Amino acid sequence: MRRLRPIVAWLGLMLLFPAGSFAAEPPVSEATSECVGCHESVTPGIVEDWKRSRHSHVTPGDALKVAHLARRVSAESVPEPVAAKVVGCAECHTANPEAHADTFEHNGHKVHIVVTPRDCAGCHPAERTQYAENIMSRAYGNLMHNALYQDLAASINGIQTFSGGRMSSHAPGEGADAESCLYCHGTEIKVAGSHARKTAMGEMTFPTLSGWPNCGVGRVNPDNTLGSCTACHTRHQFSIEMARKPYTCAECHKGPDVPAYPVYEVSKHGNIYAALGKGWDFNAVPWTVGKDFSAPTCAACHASLLVSREGTVVAERSHRMNDRNPWRLFGLPYAHPHPVSPDTSFIRNGAGLPLPTELTGEPVALVLIDAAEQATRRNAMQKICRACHSTSWVTGQFARFEETVKGTNAMTLAATQTLMSAWDKGLAKGPAQNDSPFNEPIEKMWVEQWLFYANSTRFASAMAGADYGTFANGRWYLSKNLREMIGLLDSGLHGADNTALPAK
Amino acid sequence: MRRLRPIVAWLGLMLLFPAGSFAAEPPVSEATSECVGCHESVTPGIVEDWKRSRHSHVTPGDALKVAHLARRVSAESVPEPVAAKVVGCAECHTANPEAHADTFEHNGHKVHIVVTPRDCAGCHPAERTQYAENIMSRAYGNLMHNALYQDLAASINGIQTFSGGRMSSHAPGEGADAESCLYCHGTEIKVAGSHARKTAMGEMTFPTLSGWPNCGVGRVNPDNTLGSCTACHTRHQFSIEMARKPYTCAECHKGPDVPAYPVYEVSKHGNIYAALGKGWDFNAVPWTVGKDFSAPTCAACHASLLVSREGTVVAERSHRMNDRNPWRLFGLPYAHPHPVSPDTSFIRNGAGLPLPTELTGEPVALVLIDAAEQATRRNAMQKICRACHSTSWVTGQFARFEETVKGTNAMTLAATQTLMSAWDKGLAKGPAQNDSPFNEPIEKMWVEQWLFYANSTRFASAMAGADYGTFANGRWYLSKNLREMIGLLDSGLHGADNTALPAK
Amino acid sequence: MRRLRPIVAWLGLMLLFPAGSFAAEPPVSEATSECVGCHESVTPGIVEDWKRSRHSHVTPGDALKVAHLARRVSAESVPEPVAAKVVGCAECHTANPEAHADTFEHNGHKVHIVVTPRDCAGCHPAERTQYAENIMSRAYGNLMHNALYQDLAASINGIQTFSGGRMSSHAPGEGADAESCLYCHGTEIKVAGSHARKTAMGEMTFPTLSGWPNCGVGRVNPDNTLGSCTACHTRHQFSIEMARKPYTCAECHKGPDVPAYPVYEVSKHGNIYAALGKGWDFNAVPWTVGKDFSAPTCAACHASLLVSREGTVVAERSHRMNDRNPWRLFGLPYAHPHPVSPDTSFIRNGAGLPLPTELTGEPVALVLIDAAEQATRRNAMQKICRACHSTSWVTGQFARFEETVKGTNAMTLAATQTLMSAWDKGLAKGPAQNDSPFNEPIEKMWVEQWLFYANSTRFASAMAGADYGTFANGRWYLSKNLREMIGLLDSGLHGADNTALPAK
Repeated sequence: MRRLRPIVAWLGLMLLFPAGSFAAEPPVSEATSECVGCHESVTPGIVEDWKRSRHSHVTPGDALKVAHLARRVSAESVPEPVAAKVVGCAECHTANPEAHADTFEHNGHKVHIVVTPRDCAGCHPAERTQYAENIMSRAYGNLMHNALYQDLAASINGIQTFSGGRMSSHAPGEGADAESCLYCHGTEIKVAGSHARKTAMGEMTFPTLSGWPNCGVGRVNPDNTLGSCTACHTRHQFSIEMARKPYTCAECHKGPDVPAYPVYEVSKHGNIYAALGKGWDFNAVPWTVGKDFSAPTCAACHASLLVSREGTVVAERSHRMNDRNPWRLFGLPYAHPHPVSPDTSFIRNGAGLPLPTELTGEPVALVLIDAAEQATRRNAMQKICRACHSTSWVTGQFARFEETVKGTNAMTLAATQTLMSAWDKGLAKGPAQNDSPFNEPIEKMWVEQWLFYANSTRFASAMAGADYGTFANGRWYLSKNLREMIGLLDSGLHGADNTALPAK
Repeated sequence: MRRLRPIVAWLGLMLLFPAGSFAAEPPVSEATSECVGCHESVTPGIVEDWKRSRHSHVTPGDALKVAHLARRVSAESVPEPVAAKVVGCAECHTANPEAHADTFEHNGHKVHIVVTPRDCAGCHPAERTQYAENIMSRAYGNLMHNALYQDLAASINGIQTFSGGRMSSHAPGEGADAESCLYCHGTEIKVAGSHARKTAMGEMTFPTLSGWPNCGVGRVNPDNTLGSCTACHTRHQFSIEMARKPYTCAECHKGPDVPAYPVYEVSKHGNIYAALGKGWDFNAVPWTVGKDFSAPTCAACHASLLVSREGTVVAERSHRMNDRNPWRLFGLPYAHPHPVSPDTSFIRNGAGLPLPTELTGEPVALVLIDAAEQATRRNAMQKICRACHSTSWVTGQFARFEETVKGTNAMTLAATQTLMSAWDKGLAKGPAQNDSPFNEPIEKMWVEQWLFYANSTRFASAMAGADYGTFANGRWYLSKNLREMIGLLDSGLHGADNTALPAK
Repeated sequence: MRRLRPIVAWLGLMLLFPAGSFAAEPPVSEATSECVGCHESVTPGIVEDWKRSRHSHVTPGDALKVAHLARRVSAESVPEPVAAKVVGCAECHTANPEAHADTFEHNGHKVHIVVTPRDCAGCHPAERTQYAENIMSRAYGNLMHNALYQDLAASINGIQTFSGGRMSSHAPGEGADAESCLYCHGTEIKVAGSHARKTAMGEMTFPTLSGWPNCGVGRVNPDNTLGSCTACHTRHQFSIEMARKPYTCAECHKGPDVPAYPVYEVSKHGNIYAALGKGWDFNAVPWTVGKDFSAPTCAACHASLLVSREGTVVAERSHRMNDRNPWRLFGLPYAHPHPVSPDTSFIRNGAGLPLPTELTGEPVALVLIDAAEQATRRNAMQKICRACHSTSWVTGQFARFEETVKGTNAMTLAATQTLMSAWDKGLAKGPAQNDSPFNEPIEKMWVEQWLFYANSTRFASAMAGADYGTFANGRWYLSKNLREMIGLLDSGLHGADNTALPAK
């Protein structure tokens, strides 16, 4: 077998170079040829990009012939004539024209601007179905239809003005939300009308979109679908290599609120990837542990179909990204078992707040997965760990992690109790005083306690990125911030909202 | 087997280098041969580095023969004998000997240590001319000849001592400035004398330089020129690949004051580069959109000559880096249209301060580019965007960005008004009290408001690095910091300079 | 020309795979074959990883035949039969069975889980000896047997609870220390018993380890040795490429306390590496300056055997990582000459504190290297610098660095005096009041002054990462934090530990 390697490698190389250079041109539909005819002048970058893609080289018909684990399409069949032509501009941008409110007449074609999960599902229906169960697909509504989160967002993005010695807050503009929270969560894209514009090809009419541009994971599309496949499978190469590399996840999982990427980067896994990843095969399907890659990226643990060299399945492909996560590390404000439904906007805790835990930490059990489901997910994850690590290694790692979930929740509770004491003493105004819990200094310290420091400490624990969880953004600040909150409480100062100091 | 290596390497090289280079060894001047003779023992690293460079393989004469867009030299002609030999040690380090105060006798040659834009201009005169119009070329004087910025630098770099319960400030040492502000801005390099030293080749005499080492963008050179080409075109490969990769810009554009790199890194563009850039051609001239690269690096948007595969020019090469920037995002303290002149040291606002805006935000219109010039620059940038993006995408992106310029300026104004109120109330001492506006806690919070948080939010907006502009270093802190300033104002504390608290 | 590409690539691939793969299989011991027989099913990832390693391709016997500078093993000889077989699972995991408390019966072999420096020393004895002199090998005891550092760790990792308006601290759990401080410093691994477990091969019994998993640099092993070679030479490729890349060091040298990596990343050296490193030879032994790499990584300056192309030794290989460091930049709380002994747990300063300097900055000279040894180390480092830089460049750089050591120590002194003043005034409780010096807000500010800002400023100076040392985490905060400490002192507030405010 070893002697075959160079030959296999050579064959592999033949696949890397456009088939055209050795045999026949891939069959492009007439409609796509028309698109390319103009757009290689008008938007040359994306046309060239597409030319490098697998979509431009393989027809769905050929993709369907590939045997089970190596197959990249989940459809049982694809209707002619789609099956016979490579997937080009027209195949996506003219699919399902009736469903798209942004469909417009463009050089004799019914084109839509925003390609959606509905369009991709022609060939990839399983991925669409799984993704619809992914909490990320609901990221828009889960944020925008939750009054508490809306209040937090407004306290961050709103413009503040100083006048007469007082600070006033104003609602954030649409652009501010769109380029911060909603860049990742997704905007709602609506057709607001149409407009004519002079182009190199003469005057043309285009739909006017609001909420555009956006490629967020929970985008509300003009065809009423949710999500944007291109958030991870970037246009117009749609490269599996890119989706498997950690930079893609980092676009939304890098900041101190959900620091998966900086934790990964400083972990042993991230170190191996950075040092040796240049030689790995990021395009292989299925993805063979040890052979194609020596250490996991985000995708390996959370999404990809993994097999051993012997062909045993280590992990099933999943686009419901929390399939292997027993806990939702992202505390709101406490870490908790994952919500059962991807739609969390209807959740209310015992106090009536739209949170999956009480302010004092108890999970809202009814809407969260139970211990059995947690065990199932833990086992699915540990099976991946065990592809390289001994059982005792894995057990030890998870024991520490469970301890950290408890410990960081305790440190969040202490901060919450400090804040509630400040509210009680009138040093700050909370919900009981009909005021935002997010707009005064001690409240902002409380937010940082759970959103930055507890979250970071947990991510660092889960993915063994110790350095990040210690001094960079974890335990040092988790303990220091709490002492400063107590210090502020003791000082009798509140200093927010420009109200007078309490009498001493 | 090992014997095959050189053959493979040779075949590889054939693909990398134009056919011409195979015939004969590249012609090296006698002077350079002499340099190399000793220096491959004395400083072997840089000699090897130079051997990999294009400079060591191509003569200016051959470089001049290349057709227009692919040409890498901007000179009309280059005098013999320079044209006939590759560009080696002597060609640069002995050029223009009379102009250089650091010229010294070295083994029979008049060598100078510091190679300057004057020397590079022998072959690259257009780049020198453009760069002289680049604000970066004035970075030394723009900082050092501005009393306000000098005060800020001293408040950061100065040594503070505690004595008798009071803190005293002392002017920073030369080294402290040189390794912080002036690493990027450039030092002033002067010949302070000469000194003898025993070397492997016997005792030799060398000029003694002050301000050395330095490769800052605005370096004041011993030949009275400004700037250092090696800041971006690093010695001694002078690789265009390196100048086009974002790490080069990151050396000076990474911190929270001007975070272009961390914003890029977390943007979709940066993600594409990180995931797929390994296969791009960073050495091609001109640089073909989509074919040579799939997503822009810093250079693509701000400097490089870009073309489409059809050969249409998308952007002209420019070494005046703000040619495509309508706004100067770097607020001082407010974002403003770019200054007309690269020399900003003469600018005074209505209050007589050396700032391009009033403290209350109005731009000093007379010294800044007007709306028409802003439109020209915006169009130049948008033309690059449109090489991949639709017009409606680009319009939407720029509308958000303009909203963010306004919004962050408003948040800077609120902070400035809060500070002025603190000065009025005697809680801190500002210019009206003949005190620095940078040395007390509330003043430092004000500096962070514009220098860190408003700047970061704008960079994140301009380059769509949402994650950085939200919780990492942007809107969260922009709003939180303002609330803390108000809190400090309300507390009646100032707590700086060890002065007594105001009577309550 | 294009048609040649696949052929060249094919020839290239032939070179990538060891000659052995075309002729004879490398000789694997019977024991290792048995291990692989099961473990390629049980833990396929690491078996595949090992197959890529040099260990799986070269026998110690062959490794010993390599001439001096190119030799990768330091043993004079290796006993048969070890010399005749490649280094596989059994060669390491069954070595020295009597020494290992974690040895257990496993399918007829005496296997141990934790491979230690003793095991590696069979072939690499010089590295083990050098590493035992490396302060890193004592990282566990130097932290855990120092009451002051233990107090700091407890103040960070301990759980805090809020009750009756007061905050109480509780000792951190074992897991919390293990996944923060001890991830890098190393845990103590002990055999706590044994347990049976059902496996794919039937029920088996395994040792139960406490402190597991861990690969910290100062790990206390079950065979009583100290350290873990795999901390840098990651299992199971043990690739020299990986140890030489900066990501490996970054696992523990990235946070704000010891930010070597972020400083490197923003330095010119780091920039060259990031832009051009893809073409360097990270596997060559010895490592040739300029030819194999164009700019140093961490290993080049601190560990690797470097030569010039002519074969002159530029630096000897060393696993005592501070061989070329005159100063210990990591201030405790002041930068100081390196300790003579790798074991620092016995050090006491004049005040009886377990610190290498007095609280007022004077070094505890007796236990630290003297000026002559500092000069030796400085010279060793400068010799590396001079492989690329002129003597005047190097002298200028080091002069600035020495100024920065002094300046940052002065800024640490001012902060310490401010803190002592707070203790004197009763605004905080320090050792004289039998209280921790680490648990109150002003004490935490003091910790940040030396641990974060002074350290960061020094690292940025030493490695010329100016951007990090200015606004990112250096001089800006060093000066600002001091002003805030004075501000807090002046305010008369302390606000920690929930004690009443002092009477005014």
